[in-house]
Amino acid sequence: MKKRIAILPGDGIGPEVMQGAVRVLQAISDCFQHDFIFEEGLIGGAAIDECGNPLPDTTLDLCSKSDAILLGAVGGPKWEATSQTIRPEQGLLRIRKELGLFANLRPVCAYEPLIHASTLKKEVIEHVDLLIVRELTGGLYFGKPSERRGDNKELAVDTLVYNIQEIERVVDKAFQLARKRRKKLTSVDKANVLESSRMWREVVNRLSANYPDVQVEHMLVDSASMQLIYRPEQFDVIVTENLFGDILSDEASMITGSLGMLPSASLRSDAVGLYEPVHGSAPDIAGKNLANPLGMVLSVALMLKFSFGLDKEASIIEESVMKVLNDGFHTGDLHLQQGTRVSTTKMVNKIIDS
Amino acid sequence: MKKRIAILPGDGIGPEVMQGAVRVLQAISDCFQHDFIFEEGLIGGAAIDECGNPLPDTTLDLCSKSDAILLGAVGGPKWEATSQTIRPEQGLLRIRKELGLFANLRPVCAYEPLIHASTLKKEVIEHVDLLIVRELTGGLYFGKPSERRGDNKELAVDTLVYNIQEIERVVDKAFQLARKRRKKLTSVDKANVLESSRMWREVVNRLSANYPDVQVEHMLVDSASMQLIYRPEQFDVIVTENLFGDILSDEASMITGSLGMLPSASLRSDAVGLYEPVHGSAPDIAGKNLANPLGMVLSVALMLKFSFGLDKEASIIEESVMKVLNDGFHTGDLHLQQGTRVSTTKMVNKIIDS
Ligand SMILES: CC(C)[C@H](C(=O)O)[C@@H](O)C(=O)O
Ligand SMILES: CC(C)[C@H](C(=O)O)[C@@H](O)C(=O)O
Repeated sequence: MKKRIAILPGDGIGPEVMQGAVRVLQAISDCFQHDFIFEEGLIGGAAIDECGNPLPDTTLDLCSKSDAILLGAVGGPKWEATSQTIRPEQGLLRIRKELGLFANLRPVCAYEPLIHASTLKKEVIEHVDLLIVRELTGGLYFGKPSERRGDNKELAVDTLVYNIQEIERVVDKAFQLARKRRKKLTSVDKANVLESSRMWREVVNRLSANYPDVQVEHMLVDSASMQLIYRPEQFDVIVTENLFGDILSDEASMITGSLGMLPSASLRSDAVGLYEPVHGSAPDIAGKNLANPLGMVLSVALMLKFSFGLDKEASIIEESVMKVLNDGFHTGDLHLQQGTRVSTTKMVNKIIDS
Repeated sequence: MKKRIAILPGDGIGPEVMQGAVRVLQAISDCFQHDFIFEEGLIGGAAIDECGNPLPDTTLDLCSKSDAILLGAVGGPKWEATSQTIRPEQGLLRIRKELGLFANLRPVCAYEPLIHASTLKKEVIEHVDLLIVRELTGGLYFGKPSERRGDNKELAVDTLVYNIQEIERVVDKAFQLARKRRKKLTSVDKANVLESSRMWREVVNRLSANYPDVQVEHMLVDSASMQLIYRPEQFDVIVTENLFGDILSDEASMITGSLGMLPSASLRSDAVGLYEPVHGSAPDIAGKNLANPLGMVLSVALMLKFSFGLDKEASIIEESVMKVLNDGFHTGDLHLQQGTRVSTTKMVNKIIDS
């Protein structure tokens, strides 16, 4: 199989974890005779430094021509002043929007060997296997106006806007995913306050007629943020709007013990997708060979599955991750008392060897 | 001391927990010779049923003339259809807005006897003592437009708007509170995406010059939702906008083991305040004498302290709560293996007796 993969390392620990991802993919292609073509592009702070633009046209072109995109992380203190009008995150937001990647999948499950790394009790998390489907190209992230107003710029306005189609396509995706899993969908909104949430709820109720086999429930976002750590095993698929999904998925990451473990897939209607770890650029540990590469490596597995249909190869990566964790290897973010703490590159070596 | 207290029981378990609050206050006034005048008003679903309005003028008048307001809870399935244009929550939102109660204080601390009721590990929560200061009269809750648009109402818009003064007053309040505590303020925003958050951050940075003794940090809301369960003891005072505060405070409630434990105070610049438990109307257990009255009772303590300056009386209530918990009494929401499970009224009796 021949596939073109755009590689966007980005900032901070992005390049380190990306290197791991590419090495894992090379091992897979050697083993299964695939022809993966890697082409690198600039994004985020690295792109600002190079050409003053967090998403240069060359990168966008590259992505448009690729079968899938791997992204490391963007951002860092260097580009962070509130006065700055050009920011690394704009690159990330724009690429999601330009490529129309409306459904962001963030699976969260408890890894047996990491159970003790979580701040939550073992019995609370041991059976967790949930999937957050976050709307990724609408809501407060992209609504206009988003501006300062008044003679002294004393007013700030952001806009939460959704049209019905935007909600339908992501909710439909979530129903389809729920159907392939435990057939339960929890739609999270704030319908007791927001118009957009009431429309969201209507769409979910209407589409549920097409999925009689899927059990649907609505949950308010405040309640969901509580339930996610109270009885997380109650959830199968959660579908929610952009900002709620951002907040809830970072919270849910604590079930696995570290944000460093979580992969994500950003999808649209065809097979093209963007795959990135949920963690950020972690400037404090960047360049030190300390970062957890597993969020990125597991994102590669999601790419093989969702964009290339290579389920077997994807499973092999997921099983290698399990094996290495079972063997007690982990990076420093996991704060485990037992086992062997290893570097980023060592962790990747272990994955490839196993 | 003579004080007029508006009593708004509301819906669901509201009336039950309110009854407990009033009995505790009567005991306090008997003991300390205060003259508390209780006047009851309708709000929420109960008010809709009675007069078609979730916040009748008579209730608003009553509150305007009172020294403090106690509120139970509002809402329930009876009034919940998305098509409904009159909703119980509007009463709650309007009273906050009309009375200008811009600062919502939600203290969260670990209670030693309840440590095992939490889904978080003992060592993670045992030293937690934090205060969330939530902006309560602005942001997405009140921004206009908030409407459906288009020929087929296919667009939904909500507006997140803040002016500088709205941010200043709540941030200033938070600085003052931090100064009286451990002198650390964490401001939570989404400045990498929202204009309003960037303005929020500017205000915090500017005001921090007036509080050189208070250590300030900024945290993104997604990161905060993670840190709140990863290292909750790192927080002293958290200040944030309305919806972020709604989500984070429900999440933080899990530190105490139950939403039923948490009190809140909604304040403005003078001494008038509204006090309500953080929990909702819990329709599933309403009328069954099962509800945890402690969130409401602790709200009474906050009222005595913040609105009446009766610090001693407030401490007596807080100590009684501690004592009763230490004696092993608890309501069913706490899921404790040990101790004695009691009803709402029994719990209140225990508080009064001790
Ligand atoms: C970097 C930031 C803009 C981004 C987001 O909020 O979407 C990140 O937090 C994420 O979750 O991918
Ligand atoms: C009932 C609802 C409108 C309310 C809110 O969102 O403010 C509640 O969740 C709260 O936290 O007091």
